[in-house]
Amino acid sequence: MKESEVIKGKFYSVHIDAKLKSLRSFLKEKKYSSVIVLTDSNTQEFCLEEFLALTRLKIFFHINIEAGEENKTLETAIAVWNKMLPVADRKSLLINLGGGVVSDTGAFAASVFKRGIDFINVPTTLLSMTDAAIGGKNGVDFGFKKNQLGTFAHPKAIFISVSWLKSVSDLEMKSAYGEIAKQALLDGKKRWKNFLEHFSSKENTEDVIASAIKFKLKIVDKDLKDHGIRKQLNLGHTVGHALESFCLEKGRPVPHGMAVAAGMICELRLSEQVFKKKNFFHAEIEFLKINFPRVEFSESELPEILSFISSDKKNENRKVKPALLEKIGKANWENEVSLKKIEASLNEYIKS
Amino acid sequence: MKESEVIKGKFYSVHIDAKLKSLRSFLKEKKYSSVIVLTDSNTQEFCLEEFLALTRLKIFFHINIEAGEENKTLETAIAVWNKMLPVADRKSLLINLGGGVVSDTGAFAASVFKRGIDFINVPTTLLSMTDAAIGGKNGVDFGFKKNQLGTFAHPKAIFISVSWLKSVSDLEMKSAYGEIAKQALLDGKKRWKNFLEHFSSKENTEDVIASAIKFKLKIVDKDLKDHGIRKQLNLGHTVGHALESFCLEKGRPVPHGMAVAAGMICELRLSEQVFKKKNFFHAEIEFLKINFPRVEFSESELPEILSFISSDKKNENRKVKPALLEKIGKANWENEVSLKKIEASLNEYIKS
Repeated sequence: MKESEVIKGKFYSVHIDAKLKSLRSFLKEKKYSSVIVLTDSNTQEFCLEEFLALTRLKIFFHINIEAGEENKTLETAIAVWNKMLPVADRKSLLINLGGGVVSDTGAFAASVFKRGIDFINVPTTLLSMTDAAIGGKNGVDFGFKKNQLGTFAHPKAIFISVSWLKSVSDLEMKSAYGEIAKQALLDGKKRWKNFLEHFSSKENTEDVIASAIKFKLKIVDKDLKDHGIRKQLNLGHTVGHALESFCLEKGRPVPHGMAVAAGMICELRLSEQVFKKKNFFHAEIEFLKINFPRVEFSESELPEILSFISSDKKNENRKVKPALLEKIGKANWENEVSLKKIEASLNEYIKS
Repeated sequence: MKESEVIKGKFYSVHIDAKLKSLRSFLKEKKYSSVIVLTDSNTQEFCLEEFLALTRLKIFFHINIEAGEENKTLETAIAVWNKMLPVADRKSLLINLGGGVVSDTGAFAASVFKRGIDFINVPTTLLSMTDAAIGGKNGVDFGFKKNQLGTFAHPKAIFISVSWLKSVSDLEMKSAYGEIAKQALLDGKKRWKNFLEHFSSKENTEDVIASAIKFKLKIVDKDLKDHGIRKQLNLGHTVGHALESFCLEKGRPVPHGMAVAAGMICELRLSEQVFKKKNFFHAEIEFLKINFPRVEFSESELPEILSFISSDKKNENRKVKPALLEKIGKANWENEVSLKKIEASLNEYIKS
């Protein structure tokens, strides 16, 4: 493993760099008029001190928001804007130090503050390092619906230190592996094999992160706004998002990656049907079933779960077109799948 | 005068078309999943019915906001989002039917709703036809400060029917001419001459509008984000914005274009000083003095007005660099001007 690695995307670079030296150089070079560090209550407690020591950042403003998905809202963005107003001008920098909630809220806040100020992401969870902090999408919830307000906006750079992962819980790590597994399936056989090896050994985390970032950047650099190939990243998400939203509403939230793992099990089975390849993904489905906690729901709850799918914002003209897998490394997002088939796949998930 | 004219910009076209036929074709061609018409209380009363008759739009949703600069706020955007939520998806269109408050608020609301949906501007005032609706900037006020939240986002097209102007008050027309005069001074001698002719005859309004749009598009297509030549459009605005904000705070609001006309008088005098051209703009200053109502303020209020200038968001590193005019058709925005000199120009404005 190299000490540091720079992955160059079309719009910005991702620096994997345990000591954050690249971030120190970045700050020295850019001469921002003010620097604001955004944390949530977790990263304030577990990361901020180390971050300040590593970056040797002395003059800065600090804004803290409550941790938790339920706080990724317009209200939180408004609180951030109120605190930015007296200390930030157009030449200020916002540093998003945290997981997806911080990078999503912070990127949105920065991208519309005075029509957009610079921001960088310093993701502190495996999920945000490999997925949420990358890709130029941000968003906050509005009217009790997810990601209704947001923009496409790129950070000036992303800085990743794996040292933060020591403070990430096992459950969160598992959740991140749900998304990484999805990416590996989409990326191809070699990457999937590497992923399985890493998953059992838990070695070479930097490499797993670097592969994930390279793949995601490759896709989003070609299709930032989701018109084509980026749609493959929705694998597992049509069913997964519905399960996540449903369980959240019922007061028994499940981590995002876990819902995606369950969603993938259903959608790989749907893929087998659509592409007429019986049991083709048996091994992959078994892997997901064994290694990710089950999402619990009952047959009587299916109508409600399906209603989330029919109102999914990914639908166009009310057609549900989940990202499906023809084979490892080859996705297809052009097939409409009926709610009845999706219901059957959810039923099979319950029973198997 | 041609019956209709299309001005093609880099990102979209502006259709000057009294009967809005081009808009009818646009709607027919685009097949939006839903269409939402945004009005304010003025355009709801004076324009909506005619708009619906001209466009023959039958199935649509209507959102109305209160008229008035003071309502161009985040709160209004939130009210718009709340009403869009049940009726708009990613394939919906928002039509901003109104002046600058409607197009600024609507464009901002559309540009962050589900990470951006299509919108078009149908400006109904001379000011918005020639300035506000064009240029890709939007914004709402936040924390009692102007345009603190916003994005750069282009409408899919702009549709202009001069027939709306019959409902625009004389004061508003005058205000618009403040901005048009500014543009004409920046554009060159020929345009300035045409402007003066039109101003006295009030004929060929479509031509005046078309010239204004062509000039503004030419500038913003080259420099959307205000890094260079777009800064010339700030002529009159360093002093003008300060006067506008100050008078608003004192409860004696002045129309934007009037404040800009006063600002131009001061900044043309500053230009004469900076470029060492005594009385060079005598004729232009006289024109502005004679044809635009005075903005009233007293010497004792100057410190407060100057404090608006020192906190202007256009300043960089606290330096005030107003757009100045070397000669008609040639601006310069690189010269720092001291607050003392600006104060002197305001004093001269009071006394002359």
